[in-house]
Amino acid sequence: MRIGIDIGGTTVKIGLVDSYKVLEYYSIPTRKETLFADIFESVKDFLKKKNISSIEFIGFGVPGNVKDNYIYMLPNIGIGNIDIEDEISKYFPNIVFASDNDANAAALGEALNDADSSSSYMITLGTGVGGGLVMNGKVIRGSNFACGEIGHMYIDAKHEFSCSCGLKGCLETVASATGVVRLAKRYASSLETKLNLEVATCKDILDAAKENDPLGSYVLDMLASYLARGLANIAVTVDVEVFYIGGGVAACGDILIQKIQRYYQEYAHYAVKNTRIVPAKLGNLAGMLGAAYLI
Amino acid sequence: MRIGIDIGGTTVKIGLVDSYKVLEYYSIPTRKETLFADIFESVKDFLKKKNISSIEFIGFGVPGNVKDNYIYMLPNIGIGNIDIEDEISKYFPNIVFASDNDANAAALGEALNDADSSSSYMITLGTGVGGGLVMNGKVIRGSNFACGEIGHMYIDAKHEFSCSCGLKGCLETVASATGVVRLAKRYASSLETKLNLEVATCKDILDAAKENDPLGSYVLDMLASYLARGLANIAVTVDVEVFYIGGGVAACGDILIQKIQRYYQEYAHYAVKNTRIVPAKLGNLAGMLGAAYLI
Repeated sequence: MRIGIDIGGTTVKIGLVDSYKVLEYYSIPTRKETLFADIFESVKDFLKKKNISSIEFIGFGVPGNVKDNYIYMLPNIGIGNIDIEDEISKYFPNIVFASDNDANAAALGEALNDADSSSSYMITLGTGVGGGLVMNGKVIRGSNFACGEIGHMYIDAKHEFSCSCGLKGCLETVASATGVVRLAKRYASSLETKLNLEVATCKDILDAAKENDPLGSYVLDMLASYLARGLANIAVTVDVEVFYIGGGVAACGDILIQKIQRYYQEYAHYAVKNTRIVPAKLGNLAGMLGAAYLI
Repeated sequence: MRIGIDIGGTTVKIGLVDSYKVLEYYSIPTRKETLFADIFESVKDFLKKKNISSIEFIGFGVPGNVKDNYIYMLPNIGIGNIDIEDEISKYFPNIVFASDNDANAAALGEALNDADSSSSYMITLGTGVGGGLVMNGKVIRGSNFACGEIGHMYIDAKHEFSCSCGLKGCLETVASATGVVRLAKRYASSLETKLNLEVATCKDILDAAKENDPLGSYVLDMLASYLARGLANIAVTVDVEVFYIGGGVAACGDILIQKIQRYYQEYAHYAVKNTRIVPAKLGNLAGMLGAAYLI
């Protein structure tokens, strides 16, 4: 039995995991002052309630930069400089544990859930664009722990919107929830729409696209096109078997995946045209599952 | 002792390798009718002459597509459908052997020669642009044997020149020897130059750049800029420790590497700015060294 913990900005999801499945899970609120104490006390209670006397591993997916179990900064929670080893030793001395950022944990979770793949790249479309590369059941972290930062691939020479990272034209500027809103505003004056762009969210815009709203449809097409360009670039760089597309933006459904697949056929090098592009399947569970198998 | 064999369009280089060094090597002409018979007879003679009674491994870098030791096509030699196992068993029954394409073999050779790196991407700038990814001493071949096909990364939205692969805007269309000539012709009417573009080669153009020829300098800058964009994209995708820049175009020397490094600082995500960009060091020897350690 393993415990996989997915730390988020508002809740922490804690899962009991075995044989590559999340058997059950629950959530606790994220409290910055007592984050790890809350987690470990809750896990202890949970294990006691379940009559589980020992677990083999605890893994953590954290929303920020972590290296050798030292958390530098969790910007969405507002804490940092935390040594997980110090925290865990008070509650579970001698337990085997590991940690990684949440995008990598989720990428590993999706990969472990897909028995057919030995290499995969997960792309998470949320407020930003994240990614994670998994090969042979292992997360590839990279020499700067930056493997998967594909939100900052240069992809948009047309608008070259400024990115939060300081660069311009990053994939994230056009293929995230904020990117979708940005594109809609950019083309609002030249295309008809029922949307009120002063309040429209990414979801509103993609929902409008499904109803053939001209602006919504145009933005959905651009989104899919930029993503397909990004996937085609990743494919020649690492040639994975499968791309998993996840995150809130991807929740708009099959229409986005189908459009990405169509543009991918147009943009991809012939040697990698057969690479599968599929929706991430685990949703919320991916982070816990992956965290539980970081070692 | 190992034998590393680098099969080229005009010569085959055969090296005696030990402890990650090419101890000595020689070349034989590439004859399409008797390619592998020539190689194995020559290796047998060589080993006899050297009084080497047994070798532990023979590896092959081949200029084309090879999969499980079956060669589909060697376009520059004009042969194909060759099963290396059939060929080698006539001369060296039971020997351990392996094969890969020449770009991957060279990438592995450079990586093995650099004790400081555990992950690297080699970029070979020749008639085309090739690449090879090495992690922990192993070539990453990819699920379609297309890992390293970075010559076909979409990089040039400005000109979108047609590529031999059928796509447009590929890195290879602007960052190869033919790409350099193409760019020079494209800007010949708008910039002063001493070059005669009806006959100027890539080397002529880059030599002119070193003497501050306006057209030559402009093209060198574009070349470096496109390459830096490509490296910045690779860096967020796999986050290797080091990039090796090799091939005939790179032979123009430090000026290209320095310009790539400068543009890379401008284009790279902050997390990967420290990635090393260095000239490939082994030249001709890389392919033999890498071939000798494919297993």
